[in-house]
Amino acid sequence: MVDSVAIVSGGMDSVTLLHYLVKREKRHPAVITFVYGQKHDKEVEFARAQVEAVGCEAHLVLDLSLLRPLFASSALVSEQIAVPDIVDVMGDPQPPTYVPNRNMIFLALAVAFAETHGVSEVFYGAQRHDIYGYWDTTPQFLERLNQVYALNRKTPVQIKAPFVQYSKADIVRLGLELGVDYAQTWSCYEGQEAACGHCPTCAERLQAFAEVGIPDPLPYQ
Amino acid sequence: MVDSVAIVSGGMDSVTLLHYLVKREKRHPAVITFVYGQKHDKEVEFARAQVEAVGCEAHLVLDLSLLRPLFASSALVSEQIAVPDIVDVMGDPQPPTYVPNRNMIFLALAVAFAETHGVSEVFYGAQRHDIYGYWDTTPQFLERLNQVYALNRKTPVQIKAPFVQYSKADIVRLGLELGVDYAQTWSCYEGQEAACGHCPTCAERLQAFAEVGIPDPLPYQ
Repeated sequence: MVDSVAIVSGGMDSVTLLHYLVKREKRHPAVITFVYGQKHDKEVEFARAQVEAVGCEAHLVLDLSLLRPLFASSALVSEQIAVPDIVDVMGDPQPPTYVPNRNMIFLALAVAFAETHGVSEVFYGAQRHDIYGYWDTTPQFLERLNQVYALNRKTPVQIKAPFVQYSKADIVRLGLELGVDYAQTWSCYEGQEAACGHCPTCAERLQAFAEVGIPDPLPYQ
Repeated sequence: MVDSVAIVSGGMDSVTLLHYLVKREKRHPAVITFVYGQKHDKEVEFARAQVEAVGCEAHLVLDLSLLRPLFASSALVSEQIAVPDIVDVMGDPQPPTYVPNRNMIFLALAVAFAETHGVSEVFYGAQRHDIYGYWDTTPQFLERLNQVYALNRKTPVQIKAPFVQYSKADIVRLGLELGVDYAQTWSCYEGQEAACGHCPTCAERLQAFAEVGIPDPLPYQ
């Protein structure tokens, strides 16, 4: 019986969240995964594999590629904008990898899914590290958004981000305890055979594994 | 040059809003219209006609019918749930015509559209009358939601609902001043040739015209 909704992209944060919810918290989330016109959707196959690995019964993959016109200003979607190197986005409060209002949209859809299922919790994988560049991953964002959803008269859904105070290294440590296979996750903004190693999310991932002191099992170029 | 975004469904509230923005406020909104798996999308053609009537240059119609699984608990979407009569929903704080989190989703998408265009205002047609059954049309909803969007670091979009304190009769009065052709709007939740006259939105519309003291130009069964 589904008791919550979890947004899982197939990246390391949300995959760890999924394992945490199922194995540690004994929850039964319905999982929702979004395709939104990114340059690649390689991570979606990893999301499917991970949902199967933890034995979730419900997985909805929504292909929202038709939203591409709304996201045309993002390097993750537009072919006209190159994915930047980590060094180019340091100190930028809203780097070109920002996808306009993506988290609000995904959370709003996940909330509708929760309401329709009559459950009142939505989990997503926001973590401390993303705060440098993304306004929609912060504790303050979460707090204010929950004040909006508290107004719902029948199913006041709560958005929960258990990792919002975790570093990416904290997430890796937890995931290793929980037996997460990080070879079955994808972070790189490029969709090549092997991860690029220098886009912002690759750099952060590599740093997290280095901090923990174990090698990242993903192949890099 | 587009200076804002307006959500226009083709119903009387949002169509009046469009005329108000263009004719009275001299604004240049990009218009966005959503199809979301409703039992009919008759109103979309009226939205197109009205956008043309006021001479807007940009109109994006997004077909989100694939979201139907998220909205399965609504009488506006599910074939298993009949559209209720107005008498059946009086006093219900969340009637079966409620579409789960629809306004949050539409507003979130409109905000993304605004961000991508570099404009910081999104208009929608919430009005006082809907407050009885819909939590996502109230002044408090608007206020709290704007507190979330204020956190955006580059384009803090403001959601504006100029009619939030208007009754439906106030809207009709304003629309008649502005020359709105209400024969080219659609409110009825059923999608028949003529409006049903007894679903909640028909009843409210008919009452508004009665208050103003002119006949509704739409054909009714």
